[in-house]
Amino acid sequence: MSDWQEILGGVTAPKGYRAAGIAAGLKPSGLPDLALILSDVDAIAAGVLTISQVRAACVDYCRQRLQAKLCARAIFCNAGQANAATGEQGWQDALTSAKAIAQALEIPAESVLLASTGVIGQRIPMDALLSGIPELVSTASETGSDAAAKAIVTTDLVTKSIALETTIDNRPVRIGGIAKGSGMINPNMATMLAFVTCDAAVSPSLWQQMLSRAADKSFNQITVDGDTSTNDTLIALANGQSRTAAITQMGPVAEKLEAMLTAVCQHLAKAVARDGEGATCLIEVQVSGAPDDNAARRIAKTIVGSSLVKSAVFGRDPNWGRIAAAAGRAGVRFEQENLRIQLGDFLLMENGQPLAFDRDAASGYLKQAAAGEYLKGDTVLISVSIGNGHGTGTAWGCDLSYDYVKINAEYTT
Amino acid sequence: MSDWQEILGGVTAPKGYRAAGIAAGLKPSGLPDLALILSDVDAIAAGVLTISQVRAACVDYCRQRLQAKLCARAIFCNAGQANAATGEQGWQDALTSAKAIAQALEIPAESVLLASTGVIGQRIPMDALLSGIPELVSTASETGSDAAAKAIVTTDLVTKSIALETTIDNRPVRIGGIAKGSGMINPNMATMLAFVTCDAAVSPSLWQQMLSRAADKSFNQITVDGDTSTNDTLIALANGQSRTAAITQMGPVAEKLEAMLTAVCQHLAKAVARDGEGATCLIEVQVSGAPDDNAARRIAKTIVGSSLVKSAVFGRDPNWGRIAAAAGRAGVRFEQENLRIQLGDFLLMENGQPLAFDRDAASGYLKQAAAGEYLKGDTVLISVSIGNGHGTGTAWGCDLSYDYVKINAEYTT
Repeated sequence: MSDWQEILGGVTAPKGYRAAGIAAGLKPSGLPDLALILSDVDAIAAGVLTISQVRAACVDYCRQRLQAKLCARAIFCNAGQANAATGEQGWQDALTSAKAIAQALEIPAESVLLASTGVIGQRIPMDALLSGIPELVSTASETGSDAAAKAIVTTDLVTKSIALETTIDNRPVRIGGIAKGSGMINPNMATMLAFVTCDAAVSPSLWQQMLSRAADKSFNQITVDGDTSTNDTLIALANGQSRTAAITQMGPVAEKLEAMLTAVCQHLAKAVARDGEGATCLIEVQVSGAPDDNAARRIAKTIVGSSLVKSAVFGRDPNWGRIAAAAGRAGVRFEQENLRIQLGDFLLMENGQPLAFDRDAASGYLKQAAAGEYLKGDTVLISVSIGNGHGTGTAWGCDLSYDYVKINAEYTT
Repeated sequence: MSDWQEILGGVTAPKGYRAAGIAAGLKPSGLPDLALILSDVDAIAAGVLTISQVRAACVDYCRQRLQAKLCARAIFCNAGQANAATGEQGWQDALTSAKAIAQALEIPAESVLLASTGVIGQRIPMDALLSGIPELVSTASETGSDAAAKAIVTTDLVTKSIALETTIDNRPVRIGGIAKGSGMINPNMATMLAFVTCDAAVSPSLWQQMLSRAADKSFNQITVDGDTSTNDTLIALANGQSRTAAITQMGPVAEKLEAMLTAVCQHLAKAVARDGEGATCLIEVQVSGAPDDNAARRIAKTIVGSSLVKSAVFGRDPNWGRIAAAAGRAGVRFEQENLRIQLGDFLLMENGQPLAFDRDAASGYLKQAAAGEYLKGDTVLISVSIGNGHGTGTAWGCDLSYDYVKINAEYTT
């Protein structure tokens, strides 16, 4: 099947990376809140940043840096304060953070990328952040990925981490990643962050193209409640320490690397969707027969984002009508006579009309899926075909439970 | 202020209209399920129909009729079965329904418009429908609006009705309307239906333009959960029985009529949003300072549709961060430095940064608003300005409560 194997080590699995995570007192809880990912040498850096008009200072900072300079050595992240809606002061805080970590690492400030997550409208407590830097830098190690993964979470129930290895030129090439986010759902603690490391040598523009395409098939295809954060950040570094030949154009080797990058992003994206607040299971929607992949992805995301579909899954109700209605309003033209809907192995609708099916058994499938193991057996699969086109696409989300409302109604700013 | 006054009578308030509603056994509950609205003479007909790719037979039927012929005499509606996803048989049932009611009314079948609401994938029980027609026709009267309003509902908690009167050429001109829908939220009983009657004389193209613009400022600006139905239908008749001069182009008189039509549509739209399942209050979002009205409407609708904002209002939490984040992701460019957010009289954010405000008092405003009288005092007002543009727009929705999840998770197909 796939051309790679899963290995341990997260973002420090690829060669030439170190990471750290410590508690510096930014979170009232006292939990870890500063993370560092460090490449031993200059790494090609690519990024996908929130398109919201209301953005955190670190997002504007990364956009500037990535436009001016395609290399980076370090990603420095704080959790607890989003540093969004903090105006000129927030911007100065971002600059000060970058300068301080660069000084401690003895690298140029331009080689630092920043990310923040936490409460919107709150400044980072700069004294705490600056005091934490020496410990953060001194503890950075080749086994530090888990510590970093723990230090970037806010309301996440679990940390998200993955590493994959393949072979190029008979040498191992690895990609690792960590992420945080329980969907975009927890308002002021919102935000999806993902950091990916790779030890292949790739040209800057190719690496950015690969990352953008991978994001379109992963992070851009998950939704918990449709809310986009002020701080959403995906950064990927490629430092060439695998000592494999530089990949400068698309071809079999580049495709292999991109496929593995996409797999890393999809694993992390699914983990974020699965951790949506109140979720009891992961929902995967696969769409085929669309005019093109974009159209298929759009329909998949509309279905998985529908509150009605999400509520039905929570209620273990095989409700094909809600799936059909969501497909119909996705903004993609199709003939309803061609609509086909399947839930797990149960064919619910064909040629645009409902079929007789064993409702209890289909409901049983939903119950069983939700009882599965986290990210292993706990996936509800919805397959939809809209015609004879070659476009396919997948999206991921989670069900909508009482706890979603509880968490979001009772959360106080 | 406004150039009109509210009167009684709903869709039978304008001259030359009759209406009826009866129980014909289509709903298992035995409640009224067939409605008829009838104009004594040919009326100019305009419509706005669902843009979903999965449509009920009655929607395709109305689209054909409205394209071929701009006059109608009757609107015939059944509740209980959506007649969507019913294929060729559903289409035949629609034709049979139109023919049967036309025969009973002694009018051409082409003069009948149809609407259905209820369970997707279920055929209309044609025997019951056909047996009900004689009673429906014989009870149609100039005071039948309430009966019709009751017969078009499904899971609505209240019926929705309005009538307004103004003066043109020293003669009274009236517009009345009834609607059903508890948002788009109740899956298989989804659907927003609205029927408007008017006794002015208007040219067909002008009437359609007025209705489309009014829909953009009303029905298209409400959301309960973002789900669009297979059956959404808005039909407006204008029969000229006020005996006022024909309105054939825009000008002061046309503007007056359009303003009143918009007011009728907005009243009905707000009533639908307020009746969103589980809702405890109506939320109104007013956006100003946008480059144009479309942009303002888009931001308003994004905010009012945000699950995070809706949960916050249910939790009586003055959470400006969620409002700012929703504004930022609406797809409209603005400078975050210009963002201003107000909740009732409380200014929460200015120049893109949070202000100190009395949190308990602001939370008190939310509690008070939710305790208000249905559609009178129970409106939470959120005002947002994004710059110096002249574009303004308003959208309406409701809060997101535990009951929303309960209703939609436990509803079984």
